[in-house]
Amino acid sequence: MGDDRKIYFDHQASTPVDPRVFEAMIPYFQERFGNPSSHIHTEGVRANQALDAARGQVAELVNSETDEIIFTSCATESNNLGLRGFLKANPDKGRHIIISEIEHYSILNQALKLKDEGYEVSTLKVAEGGLIDPEAVENAIREDTALISVNLANSEIGTIQPIKEIAEIAEKHGVFFHADGAIAVGNIPIDVKELGIDALTISAHNFYGPKGIGALYLRGGNNISPIFEGGFQEYGMRSGTENVPGIVGLGVAAELASIEMPKRIEHLQKLGKMLWKGLEEEIEYINFTGHPIQRLPGHISFWIRYIEGESLLLMLNIKGVMAASGSACSSNLKGADEEDLAASHVLTAIGVPAEFCSGSLTVSMGKDNTEEEVRYLLDIMPEVVEKLLMMSPLYADKLRGKDPYSK
Amino acid sequence: MGDDRKIYFDHQASTPVDPRVFEAMIPYFQERFGNPSSHIHTEGVRANQALDAARGQVAELVNSETDEIIFTSCATESNNLGLRGFLKANPDKGRHIIISEIEHYSILNQALKLKDEGYEVSTLKVAEGGLIDPEAVENAIREDTALISVNLANSEIGTIQPIKEIAEIAEKHGVFFHADGAIAVGNIPIDVKELGIDALTISAHNFYGPKGIGALYLRGGNNISPIFEGGFQEYGMRSGTENVPGIVGLGVAAELASIEMPKRIEHLQKLGKMLWKGLEEEIEYINFTGHPIQRLPGHISFWIRYIEGESLLLMLNIKGVMAASGSACSSNLKGADEEDLAASHVLTAIGVPAEFCSGSLTVSMGKDNTEEEVRYLLDIMPEVVEKLLMMSPLYADKLRGKDPYSK
Repeated sequence: MGDDRKIYFDHQASTPVDPRVFEAMIPYFQERFGNPSSHIHTEGVRANQALDAARGQVAELVNSETDEIIFTSCATESNNLGLRGFLKANPDKGRHIIISEIEHYSILNQALKLKDEGYEVSTLKVAEGGLIDPEAVENAIREDTALISVNLANSEIGTIQPIKEIAEIAEKHGVFFHADGAIAVGNIPIDVKELGIDALTISAHNFYGPKGIGALYLRGGNNISPIFEGGFQEYGMRSGTENVPGIVGLGVAAELASIEMPKRIEHLQKLGKMLWKGLEEEIEYINFTGHPIQRLPGHISFWIRYIEGESLLLMLNIKGVMAASGSACSSNLKGADEEDLAASHVLTAIGVPAEFCSGSLTVSMGKDNTEEEVRYLLDIMPEVVEKLLMMSPLYADKLRGKDPYSK
Repeated sequence: MGDDRKIYFDHQASTPVDPRVFEAMIPYFQERFGNPSSHIHTEGVRANQALDAARGQVAELVNSETDEIIFTSCATESNNLGLRGFLKANPDKGRHIIISEIEHYSILNQALKLKDEGYEVSTLKVAEGGLIDPEAVENAIREDTALISVNLANSEIGTIQPIKEIAEIAEKHGVFFHADGAIAVGNIPIDVKELGIDALTISAHNFYGPKGIGALYLRGGNNISPIFEGGFQEYGMRSGTENVPGIVGLGVAAELASIEMPKRIEHLQKLGKMLWKGLEEEIEYINFTGHPIQRLPGHISFWIRYIEGESLLLMLNIKGVMAASGSACSSNLKGADEEDLAASHVLTAIGVPAEFCSGSLTVSMGKDNTEEEVRYLLDIMPEVVEKLLMMSPLYADKLRGKDPYSK
């Protein structure tokens, strides 16, 4: 319990590479470094075999066919490919798409771009727990709806969507259904056949694989246009020399997730419950966000009335606990606009007052976090929160009987 | 000189990661695994610092400013971003672009796509040595020319283009000039300020960095549209969680190239001369391709009359020597079309008879190849060529006095 304590509770932003994943990647940097397109010689053939094996491992994780997995460089690319790639390859399917208001920026901003190009976009509202209502999806479907894209789970508030129900509706109406599984795949069981989805975004670094590699599951029979033009890698759908070590890492991370998922989930649910219960008991003005049950294991998100969450995060970081405010991607908005913190669109969507939107907390635990680490956070929270309340002008107002937030 | 000899002469397809590059990457997989967008905590800050450092190293290699380097996932992405990104961000600059006929598929196919969208594309012919004539570039420029894109060096035939002369012409006419430096950056000296280019494609795995990472140099003051929509990474020009270990690797590979380039070039030029001279003396029907002087160091390309080069490559591979036929990227054409080998557009462009286009050889040596390895290739070549001549129907025709290729 020294000063150099380091507790990482920000697995939604990124996870450490599992040692076994890294071990498997090592040979592909210096020894088996061939270009998979070099079919003609031994090193090229070996690199190709590595791709095949990894494709099989990823397919097994989501229960797809091997040739339904396309490797990309990240979830953002997969999301772009799922939306734009499908629409460009299928111009006759209609010019209307449906998304939700709590999608990742790679969906939201791609939808905006498509709008500029003449597509119409319906953006569904979500209920308080962040759930998308399948009925609302069905109501939004029109004759010219080409595509529905919805996040499988939300990184900021942890809510897991009723994907199977939405997929059934999409299928009933013959609409292509893409699910953004960036934060979900590898962390909760996903069976593309059982769920009935057409496309699924996969992100390696969100389940103990390396950064710089992602994948798109694309159901056989569907066609997408590449976003890059170039060589003929990945069935002609993604050009560019394959990131072989990254792909090998994704494959092994997928295999480990397939095997260890029940154990990991059990562990994370235990930690999650412990943290939720502890915070609920100890922190007076806490408000949990997202769905209480339908949520990612080990994912706890909340905001605290009267407290600027950014300050809370900074104080926690000083005490060795790393967590997140909003998603890592929206954190960059701060970089773009130095003046102010941008309110998270996800939190605004679920009705969190704007004053606190920039200050909500996401504690996302990983397979290697321990009960002791959760206890430590629970130990330091009351004192940190007390200190921040004392510094809070809003809390001072409240003490003076001028509480703008009292119901 | 046992049977397990393995000589890698295919550095144009990919290079092994330098041990020092790999060493530098290691901490960023398991320890410093934070998401650079997580500005709020220690791990995020560390990841960000790693990006900054690498950006500086790459900038130093090409003599750009640090903030003129945008990280991408590969050279194909950089090429697409350089062309498409610029044109989409600058619709008022005109609808005409100029490329050469010996560009990489990521340029050729992006140009085709742009053509579909209403752009006009002038594709310049090259001279026998593969050189692009700056005068031809100037003659092709029109009032509405928005962009010129030319490869700095060609991976198949090794020719280095007169980039400075072309850049001067582009600048004179106020046309944006992108150079595809995928195979050149890190292997020959490139100074973007001295050359006067606006954008430059950089590929890590072509100079002892890892696969899955590239960069685009973009001269300050120029604007490009992102190809992916998403978060706000890379100055808003390339969304997606950054491949931190890959970027660190690219940075260190750039630093090592900066330091060691003169030594590497001297070594490779020596090996190249040795191989060229030896082949010229020993192989009767050899025809070297590309420019004899203006070429990548350690890069020797040729075809042998009467001999199917694919067979030559296979026999060399059996004897432990890995080389290439055409570029690694065009090798995939074989995968796409099982029936026949596609003739390389580069070789067709420089006038190699179609029968031999599929069978030319590219021997691209790297910094760790040795004179002994070159000697080994020179030792086995005559016997291998003799065997293939004896199997060649074209050679049989020639012996019977029916040589279709005799001048």
